[in-house]
Amino acid sequence: MAKLAKLDDIVSLCRRRGFIFQSSEIYGGLASCYDYGPLGAELKRNVRNAWWKHVVQMRDDVVGLDCSILMHPMVWKASGHADKFADLVTVCKKCNTRTRVDHLQDSREGTAEEHTEHVDIETEAARPHDLAGKVCPACGTVGQFTPPMAFKLMFETQMGANVDDTMTLYLRPETAQGIFANFRNVLDSTRVKVPFGIAQIGKSFRNEVTTKAFIFRTREFEQAELEFFCKPGTDEQWYEHWKQQRFDWYLNLGIKKENLRFRDHDPDELAHYAKACVDVEYKFPFGSGDWQELEGIANRTDYDLRQHQRGIRTMNDWYESKGDLTKISLKAESEDYLKGPLAYFDEEARERYVPYVIEPSAGVDRSTLAFLVDAYDEEEVKGEQRNLLRFSPALAPVKAAVFPLVKKDGMPDIAMNIYNDLKKQFTTFYDEKGAVGRRYRRQDEAGTPYCITVDGQTKKDNTVTVRERDSMEQARVNIDQVKTFLREKLDL
Amino acid sequence: MAKLAKLDDIVSLCRRRGFIFQSSEIYGGLASCYDYGPLGAELKRNVRNAWWKHVVQMRDDVVGLDCSILMHPMVWKASGHADKFADLVTVCKKCNTRTRVDHLQDSREGTAEEHTEHVDIETEAARPHDLAGKVCPACGTVGQFTPPMAFKLMFETQMGANVDDTMTLYLRPETAQGIFANFRNVLDSTRVKVPFGIAQIGKSFRNEVTTKAFIFRTREFEQAELEFFCKPGTDEQWYEHWKQQRFDWYLNLGIKKENLRFRDHDPDELAHYAKACVDVEYKFPFGSGDWQELEGIANRTDYDLRQHQRGIRTMNDWYESKGDLTKISLKAESEDYLKGPLAYFDEEARERYVPYVIEPSAGVDRSTLAFLVDAYDEEEVKGEQRNLLRFSPALAPVKAAVFPLVKKDGMPDIAMNIYNDLKKQFTTFYDEKGAVGRRYRRQDEAGTPYCITVDGQTKKDNTVTVRERDSMEQARVNIDQVKTFLREKLDL
Repeated sequence: MAKLAKLDDIVSLCRRRGFIFQSSEIYGGLASCYDYGPLGAELKRNVRNAWWKHVVQMRDDVVGLDCSILMHPMVWKASGHADKFADLVTVCKKCNTRTRVDHLQDSREGTAEEHTEHVDIETEAARPHDLAGKVCPACGTVGQFTPPMAFKLMFETQMGANVDDTMTLYLRPETAQGIFANFRNVLDSTRVKVPFGIAQIGKSFRNEVTTKAFIFRTREFEQAELEFFCKPGTDEQWYEHWKQQRFDWYLNLGIKKENLRFRDHDPDELAHYAKACVDVEYKFPFGSGDWQELEGIANRTDYDLRQHQRGIRTMNDWYESKGDLTKISLKAESEDYLKGPLAYFDEEARERYVPYVIEPSAGVDRSTLAFLVDAYDEEEVKGEQRNLLRFSPALAPVKAAVFPLVKKDGMPDIAMNIYNDLKKQFTTFYDEKGAVGRRYRRQDEAGTPYCITVDGQTKKDNTVTVRERDSMEQARVNIDQVKTFLREKLDL
Repeated sequence: MAKLAKLDDIVSLCRRRGFIFQSSEIYGGLASCYDYGPLGAELKRNVRNAWWKHVVQMRDDVVGLDCSILMHPMVWKASGHADKFADLVTVCKKCNTRTRVDHLQDSREGTAEEHTEHVDIETEAARPHDLAGKVCPACGTVGQFTPPMAFKLMFETQMGANVDDTMTLYLRPETAQGIFANFRNVLDSTRVKVPFGIAQIGKSFRNEVTTKAFIFRTREFEQAELEFFCKPGTDEQWYEHWKQQRFDWYLNLGIKKENLRFRDHDPDELAHYAKACVDVEYKFPFGSGDWQELEGIANRTDYDLRQHQRGIRTMNDWYESKGDLTKISLKAESEDYLKGPLAYFDEEARERYVPYVIEPSAGVDRSTLAFLVDAYDEEEVKGEQRNLLRFSPALAPVKAAVFPLVKKDGMPDIAMNIYNDLKKQFTTFYDEKGAVGRRYRRQDEAGTPYCITVDGQTKKDNTVTVRERDSMEQARVNIDQVKTFLREKLDL
């Protein structure tokens, strides 16, 4: 029975073994930003690569993309972010702390946090809010709040060297819009036909009011997003397809079934344009309810592409007027929007339409945390505690470690040869210091699936000991067979 | 004899085949930001992975790191960027265009641009500048310039939800400082001993006055940096080691020897703390001299770690005073700086020192452009022009394409089976549309090293045609041997 990890144990392990550090720790740390250390950088690389393999490489209907973080402001005007991407917040009159309205606890009934995130703020602010019994999470004062207001979540910056052409830009709050902005480019430069998808991994930034739980909700974070374009009418079937694909991805990478579930969004949680949305949730060892979103899968209909067609119309006019771009209003949709540049002509159906979009949007940092938490285990072995990370081989930061049993009798040379051969294929670690039992334990804690030991018998029969992490079982393998043996076991 | 690529040809190929698009093209484009399309995203992934394999995976003395882009402002105060990371610029009084002083052409002698980039601005501004004969690149006016002044290159943004704790942050202008800030964390959480290196790949941002030549100099860009820490006195030997290592990396990935060279920095180009610096230059098809920097390798001495020790001292005081962090002055170095937190105790030498640093700093976008330019070729085959990209197998976005000769006689099924088997190992493309000759040409232009064709003979003897991109030679290979054949040829 696997030991349930506590978040504190994970944070401590991450720091001690070099998975994750607080950013700028030497200067007291920067809130809500984190750095991945030597083991963490490899783990996160593996999470990214596993996603890319599953979503892009293994499919003939998905292509990749890698957009810049800074984009033209009209992207965010058209997407709605410039005007609506905000949280509804209130300020405690007593201690001046700003809190998200949906995160306030109620002193009267002890209600848990709501599930609304980044909803349409105009609608939300207009709705009556009863804050009389709500508790300030900073000072504990009850019901002393200002009226709710919108707090914009995009980071702003200025680009350009001349005063005349300096523009206010935003750090992208999601990678998805870069995909929509390149929909036409991808159609024109590849042979893709609807249904097809465009996938991207990259950093996004949100000036969150409330950050949370280590790397779970941070202001700088990494997303892995897919926009899958399909013919209207086939969208429900593709929604189900991607729901299942993405759920299985977590299971296949080792997440325990009992810790993963779907949570369908209630109709009143849905954005006005979305037809359906479901979260893949993981049972994290923190928060009021434990179950927290790893990934959202949404049926976004044709909303985004049509919005960008409005943006293009607005931009065309703007070139003549040259007003302030940040204050421009989005033009209405053209009546013949099916003739617009982002509409698609389906040669098979002899029909023109704006594709519907299914969007599986995963958090790379959240997934990495879930894989860490889920892999964490403690057990007693011969009266001593063994800490280990039961990572799936694809995710393990180090695939194999090579040890000489002792630093003499030619063992280090043989071990070094094996190491030099293996490292060409996958991340391998060489260690000759300390008792071999301690070296095993260090690798267990790093999640290394296999340890190879060169010992006294090696010189006699050319075999080494290969020890498996989870079972601790050992097998003698001929040196010439080690690479093939590992490749098969690791499925690489 | 390979055809010399012109930049226009490359830009056009990149757009047409989906390597690189202008960012936000549907809105008229965002100057100096670019998006990597389906083929470009794979190419750039491969460049990153080739660097990581060479610098981290293949070595037992280098570990990886992946830091946040947003860091504590004190990082930039200590590094010198907050006060000194600026270009010396002048404004044309006639047309109001800002230009870097070192980029001005002289009407009197026609001198080319200087090689100074981001030098110490205080020193530079104090030096007399003769702008009388200089020409404004925007309007052509001669000698009508304002006195030179510093133009700060870091992008600024604001982070934090409360007015009280909102901080001015910078988008990092280099990844290197994240490594210095984590030097102690890495020492404490791994078993590394000096000499060792910490490597990182990631986005950086500089609000460049003059952007340049497609993806060569952009405001958002990706770096691959290594900081290699060594004992003072061994630094010159490690400098030579990394010079050679990095030069060979480009050659091994296919860059032609005649297009690559070293350029040692003149003593007056060197930063005051640097002991030596050399650029790896590539002969690009643009610019005044063609030869342009791909990567800089510098001996930075113990400057950065000692600066961060000053930063830590400053921060400790600041916690008591709580002044404006952006206006704080850096404290002098402690007299016993060898006892500081970033000093290192060398157990073997029984000696305490602040390590010297050798820094190979490569531009991922620049390298990608160089690999593209260098791979580009045109040749005449049977009276028709063939365009191709002679990518090294490690860099090729697609490793193999699989074709059924015709869409009947069971050929598509066999081809699809081969495709499904190969794609588990590497990026593979399936194509059944159009004449096979045209399919070959499309893959040539994408740089795909091998095409596999299922034809009439396949059913008889279970063999397929494997055609090599550069020689166009074809071999018959048994279906069961295709994967092994490709793995060997591609060295994967």
